[in-house]
Amino acid sequence: MTAAAQQKNDKKPQTAITPTRAEDFPQWYQAVIKAADLAENAPVRGCMTIKPYGFALWENMQRVFDVWLKDYGIQNCAFPLLIPVSFLAKEAEHVEGFAKECAVVTHHRLEANPDGPGLRPAPSAQLEEPYVVRPTSETIIGDSMSRWVQSYRDLPMKLNQWCSVFRWEMRTRLFLRTAEFFWHEGHCAFADHEGAKTDCLTILDMYDKFFTEYLAMPGIKGVKTPDERFPGADETYCIETLMQDGKALQAATTHNLGQNFAKSCNIKYQDKEGKEAYAHTTSWAFSSRVIGALIMVHGDDDGMIMPPRIAPQQVVIIPVLKGEGDDAVMKAADDLQKKLKAAGFRAHLDARDERTPTKMWDAIKKGVPIRVELGAREVAAGQLTHVRRDIGKDSKKTESVDAFIAGLPKLIDDMHNDMLARATKFTEANLFDVKDLAELRAFFADAGKSGFVRIDLAAIQNNPEFEAIKKEFSVTTRCIPFADAGRKVIVGRAY
Amino acid sequence: MTAAAQQKNDKKPQTAITPTRAEDFPQWYQAVIKAADLAENAPVRGCMTIKPYGFALWENMQRVFDVWLKDYGIQNCAFPLLIPVSFLAKEAEHVEGFAKECAVVTHHRLEANPDGPGLRPAPSAQLEEPYVVRPTSETIIGDSMSRWVQSYRDLPMKLNQWCSVFRWEMRTRLFLRTAEFFWHEGHCAFADHEGAKTDCLTILDMYDKFFTEYLAMPGIKGVKTPDERFPGADETYCIETLMQDGKALQAATTHNLGQNFAKSCNIKYQDKEGKEAYAHTTSWAFSSRVIGALIMVHGDDDGMIMPPRIAPQQVVIIPVLKGEGDDAVMKAADDLQKKLKAAGFRAHLDARDERTPTKMWDAIKKGVPIRVELGAREVAAGQLTHVRRDIGKDSKKTESVDAFIAGLPKLIDDMHNDMLARATKFTEANLFDVKDLAELRAFFADAGKSGFVRIDLAAIQNNPEFEAIKKEFSVTTRCIPFADAGRKVIVGRAY
Repeated sequence: MTAAAQQKNDKKPQTAITPTRAEDFPQWYQAVIKAADLAENAPVRGCMTIKPYGFALWENMQRVFDVWLKDYGIQNCAFPLLIPVSFLAKEAEHVEGFAKECAVVTHHRLEANPDGPGLRPAPSAQLEEPYVVRPTSETIIGDSMSRWVQSYRDLPMKLNQWCSVFRWEMRTRLFLRTAEFFWHEGHCAFADHEGAKTDCLTILDMYDKFFTEYLAMPGIKGVKTPDERFPGADETYCIETLMQDGKALQAATTHNLGQNFAKSCNIKYQDKEGKEAYAHTTSWAFSSRVIGALIMVHGDDDGMIMPPRIAPQQVVIIPVLKGEGDDAVMKAADDLQKKLKAAGFRAHLDARDERTPTKMWDAIKKGVPIRVELGAREVAAGQLTHVRRDIGKDSKKTESVDAFIAGLPKLIDDMHNDMLARATKFTEANLFDVKDLAELRAFFADAGKSGFVRIDLAAIQNNPEFEAIKKEFSVTTRCIPFADAGRKVIVGRAY
Repeated sequence: MTAAAQQKNDKKPQTAITPTRAEDFPQWYQAVIKAADLAENAPVRGCMTIKPYGFALWENMQRVFDVWLKDYGIQNCAFPLLIPVSFLAKEAEHVEGFAKECAVVTHHRLEANPDGPGLRPAPSAQLEEPYVVRPTSETIIGDSMSRWVQSYRDLPMKLNQWCSVFRWEMRTRLFLRTAEFFWHEGHCAFADHEGAKTDCLTILDMYDKFFTEYLAMPGIKGVKTPDERFPGADETYCIETLMQDGKALQAATTHNLGQNFAKSCNIKYQDKEGKEAYAHTTSWAFSSRVIGALIMVHGDDDGMIMPPRIAPQQVVIIPVLKGEGDDAVMKAADDLQKKLKAAGFRAHLDARDERTPTKMWDAIKKGVPIRVELGAREVAAGQLTHVRRDIGKDSKKTESVDAFIAGLPKLIDDMHNDMLARATKFTEANLFDVKDLAELRAFFADAGKSGFVRIDLAAIQNNPEFEAIKKEFSVTTRCIPFADAGRKVIVGRAY
């Protein structure tokens, strides 16, 4: 490919993703996932298959956050995938919240279908008590805690598992809402209310730090209104993030379960005086849906933009091959990858038998933060050309290999900080204050408007007009932000 | 506690585990798991809960092996937990092998039971096609591969997932055989038979290296006889390990699936000439049952002995507190932990409010490789006392903190090498050659004998007398060892 052709390619007016965000945001979202090769719909109703590039992103998140959890004193465990139906039924609100969307296991054997081809559940192998595939694990972990917690010395007990859970969703969308999804679920027990509350707030801060420092994703911390609480919780805290279409996404939650599950699961301890008391428990999670959030917070009309600290590939090296001097270029590309890996960076060499523009556009659509182009002339001069994914050609720079490597940490930090600043600015610009329900109604009635809408908490409480607005415009309370001293509430459309 | 009392405790004739291995090996096994706090039976039929100490061991295995897999070119993914029954039915042998032990999902909702208390699967929410909780993922991954593999450029395709799988086992035992168990499952596709075979053998070597270099667990590599192959495989390779009771445990397998799954799942590619061909696929795994193997290979009558390179805690620090000078002891213990962690060791400080002998015996039962005792006198002299778990007081040594840390890598290597040598010696000493079926029968008829029994392959093939022996003594062919050029077969009782 000639330099002229490449330049022309750089300038091509079309976007890599069709439709654009402005044209059709939901379709753009699906197209970005496909173009970036992150995941696809599985041949199992409502389930997704997470492809290597998408799963590498999730693994990076796990790797960072798991260390933080362990520093906090968390111990990872593995609890069963199946939960007896009677366990789920122990906590009244909890079962109400989950029974309607469970995958129910009723048999333990298949047999040849006597009425036709294929297999059927063997009637003789029907279970006495059915199981559900865990939608969440409070009840089964609560059962273990009832045996593991005996004395005040056993508290606090801080457990976690990384796993997938299953909720039979009727309308699904990759990463955002799928029947099976991946998450970590922390479950802790404390001696008193204060311990549980502090845990919820500490973990919420940890999520916030993780989202801002690694995902470049700002959020609003707050507490849920009662109708939006986790089924069985006394209090649910959350981080709400704003997508580019003005819809909210709940990125993480922490739940103070009070003594509800301790009572239904019988988690009791003897205090120092030998008196028995119920523990106070918490649970909290973030899930693979944050990958959906990353796409919708950072993506542009050319595809995904990966926050560089969490990106599966921080740098992609594209050898520009022209038939002449290719060996030297490939060798230099290979050397560069080795040097970058040795320096602790995640560097990918695109050695595929594909044309250079294909490789470039694949890297763009995948959102690789730093794209390095290496041609024969650059190799001869000991140089390379690099460009940032988020700002494109304005950041294009040719410099020596050593200077590039030396400057890479700053390049990554700069890109991260710029992405966070852009998303923060967007969130702030799309947070609107309204003074009453009439203004709130007017806001959502205007099809051109979307975002976080902030109103006095007192204006909505026990107000049938607010319930009518919620229903009419499919909006919900997102959270009561900590920042407003509990006097305001944010309303919005949500994923 | 006085030094005299402690010494008396060290000399106590009883073992920490009751019964001993000689008294009742299966009961000893269960008692070790309990004493080491590794796992317990879950309130879900046949399932286990892996407790923090057990799961930390599994995590260490994952951490090491996952890096090796990635160096080999493996990409991790996540495939659905549920598999449509029709998928399972695609491969005739495969379904025969797994249909009888599946957890079958038939409904997607629970509702209040009209006939009594509790919940029941809602009849109106019966699925048209049932799902099974994956017993293994060849069929669902094969379905993805049929779309992902199009051209020879897509091959080899090397995928893996770390997950749990579910097989409805009737007789279960913690780690060794549970309904749900944890594993990694590699699934690869190649252009030809050679590629698939090489993959199977390469991964088998990787397993062997991992087992010997990290688990100090020797094994015999070989190929399975046809009746012991994975359902749907052309060839199954394995590593067979010998437990201290003389029973075999299959520690890992790799399967050359030939074109069986490629044909049933339609995994086709265009070669360089544009001709279509079916891919050759493989699958391979090791699972959480190797934790069971570790216990039965290395454990003694005082409990678990953790191989030091994989141990959740490589060093446990036990502050010997006597009321006087305790602050200095605790500070020294804390400093030591920090120093060890900074040097890259997994060091645990047992700061519990428990008596010193309790802490010592807990560390012994948990099998922590190196136990450090820190008393006031030692702290004053800048010293510590350490002892190896496997050889106990013969290895007891008092030296300076710096000398201990400097010598720790060698201490760990020595212990690892000794454990491997001991297990290798045991395996060799319990490998018996017999010259014909009469000797084979006599061996197993002798209740006092157990182990790997090696016989000419020709002596057992198509021989009804061998089938009778297998049945009468519950023995099976374990493998045709590579070492014997395919002319011998090993027979034994197996877990």
